[in-house]
Amino acid sequence: MVVVSRNWLYVKEFKGEPKEENFELVDEELPTLQDGEFLAEAEYLSVDPYMRPYMGRYPVGSLMIGGQIAKILQSKNKAFPEGVRIFGQFGWRTHTIFNPNKTQGEKPYVLPDFGSLPASLGLGILGMPGNTAYFGFLEICDPKEGETVVVSGAAGAVGSVVGQIAKLKGCQVIGIAGSDDKCEWLKKLGFEHAINYKTQNILEELKKAAPKGIDCYFDNVGGTITETVIRLMNLNGRISVCGTISNYNSVPVQVADPQRDFVFKQLKMQGFIVSRWGHRWLEGINANLNWIRQGKLQYEETVTEGFENMPKAFMDMLKGGNTGKAIVKV
Amino acid sequence: MVVVSRNWLYVKEFKGEPKEENFELVDEELPTLQDGEFLAEAEYLSVDPYMRPYMGRYPVGSLMIGGQIAKILQSKNKAFPEGVRIFGQFGWRTHTIFNPNKTQGEKPYVLPDFGSLPASLGLGILGMPGNTAYFGFLEICDPKEGETVVVSGAAGAVGSVVGQIAKLKGCQVIGIAGSDDKCEWLKKLGFEHAINYKTQNILEELKKAAPKGIDCYFDNVGGTITETVIRLMNLNGRISVCGTISNYNSVPVQVADPQRDFVFKQLKMQGFIVSRWGHRWLEGINANLNWIRQGKLQYEETVTEGFENMPKAFMDMLKGGNTGKAIVKV
Repeated sequence: MVVVSRNWLYVKEFKGEPKEENFELVDEELPTLQDGEFLAEAEYLSVDPYMRPYMGRYPVGSLMIGGQIAKILQSKNKAFPEGVRIFGQFGWRTHTIFNPNKTQGEKPYVLPDFGSLPASLGLGILGMPGNTAYFGFLEICDPKEGETVVVSGAAGAVGSVVGQIAKLKGCQVIGIAGSDDKCEWLKKLGFEHAINYKTQNILEELKKAAPKGIDCYFDNVGGTITETVIRLMNLNGRISVCGTISNYNSVPVQVADPQRDFVFKQLKMQGFIVSRWGHRWLEGINANLNWIRQGKLQYEETVTEGFENMPKAFMDMLKGGNTGKAIVKV
Repeated sequence: MVVVSRNWLYVKEFKGEPKEENFELVDEELPTLQDGEFLAEAEYLSVDPYMRPYMGRYPVGSLMIGGQIAKILQSKNKAFPEGVRIFGQFGWRTHTIFNPNKTQGEKPYVLPDFGSLPASLGLGILGMPGNTAYFGFLEICDPKEGETVVVSGAAGAVGSVVGQIAKLKGCQVIGIAGSDDKCEWLKKLGFEHAINYKTQNILEELKKAAPKGIDCYFDNVGGTITETVIRLMNLNGRISVCGTISNYNSVPVQVADPQRDFVFKQLKMQGFIVSRWGHRWLEGINANLNWIRQGKLQYEETVTEGFENMPKAFMDMLKGGNTGKAIVKV
């Protein structure tokens, strides 16, 4: 029996916002399984902001990159037996033959037991975005009780978790997001303030919401929002630079003088890629899982149905169409 | 006998480059000495870039701020006996009555024994700028042997010391400065490369001088030079933001997308004010003093004669007229 995978290829370089023409759906006949390999079938696939800048490193014709939750259909590898659910960085494809011992990239892993929670969370709050929030916020911002924390991209997969973890640590939390609905959701999550950057004056709203200034900033967006936040940071403030989604589709931008604030406020800014904490991966997942079970951490998913709709899900997410984690259900 | 101090006041707000009209020289009759006080006479006064942005915090009519090397003429304070030389943050004035126990600001200190070296170094390599280089580079950039270090404002009081310390730590050092004379001096100091930002293409020259990329950047200038350096930084690079002289007279500037580099290269940027290491002040001075005595550290001073020329010395320094430390001899 020949297995056919449907694959989304990157067939034209991104310029500005991604469009349908950048992608092409093709079929691939998979070969017979060899020793050490398994065959996995995608159940959920992830669309994430990082894919936009990262694809620039790959030649046209490459498979679109990305993670997926998949079920092992056949296996010649004892660590990945038939029937288990895994997370794998396999790209935008429905079926994958893979030998984990031969990859130089990220190794797939069997999903931890989520109990009654959906497996799709392995792409979000119990996966890379959740760990990005957990490590990227706690390790770099090192938040203290009573401090004021600002999160940009606050209603996204990462930002919504950062804000909730900040609340768990006893901080005052201000979220910046792109719609009134998102802002309402942030308040339900316990954020003290939520600012709609599309309709409100960010500087004025931040001044009101953070009368004592800002101690920690978790930055998902970059650009002018970031310039504005930096102006209100306190002495010895910390900035964790997770992403710069506002600039993924365009450069340059007009900015103020962030370096001057860096000197006078003795700020620390650090960029990170979550894989630096790869050796502590399950620690992050289990911490978030326990908080969810204790009712202390909430999540939302924006689900697009159908593998054929992956480009649409990706483009919508880049425009801010999602609340919480954007995923595709095959 | 009445002592009269000549004082330079800040009589008009700075807008753009400082001009003669921003300053006014006035006489002040000093009162009789009280218990705990001393009377000090300035020998050398410092003009430093930080004075430009810091004066914005003071009302018009204030004394210009700054440090000086002074001699105690009379004393009713045992810790500061007649005849000793001190460093004091007394401002632009020739004579000062001061009670060190009553100040909430920086306390004056008796100069360490410099041996045959001139006392004026207490304003430069053996004072605040030397310590700014020593701590701000070593503590924040944490340079490793064999790494590539870039210094902007490299021929200034701080930059020239940073580059030499980087050499002592076994790094490759590239300096950026504003004239061919300065660049020649940097090479004499042992810098592998010196780039004249006024006549050369910084990006192209940096690519040639740093084929393996840049690990540490000590930034005195900010602005477009900094944007260019960030583009060539390596993974896990460190940036110490000491000052942003390029922007002291104007904002805003047009920049690229530094935050994106921060994420992908996992950079760390930290601003600092040297007083954070105030508890280790003499450690820095002694380290630099020992290196000078061992012939491992060189310095230059740009001396303006005459207290009446302080505004001119200050304005020249802001335009890059100095090599090494800019000081005024009374």
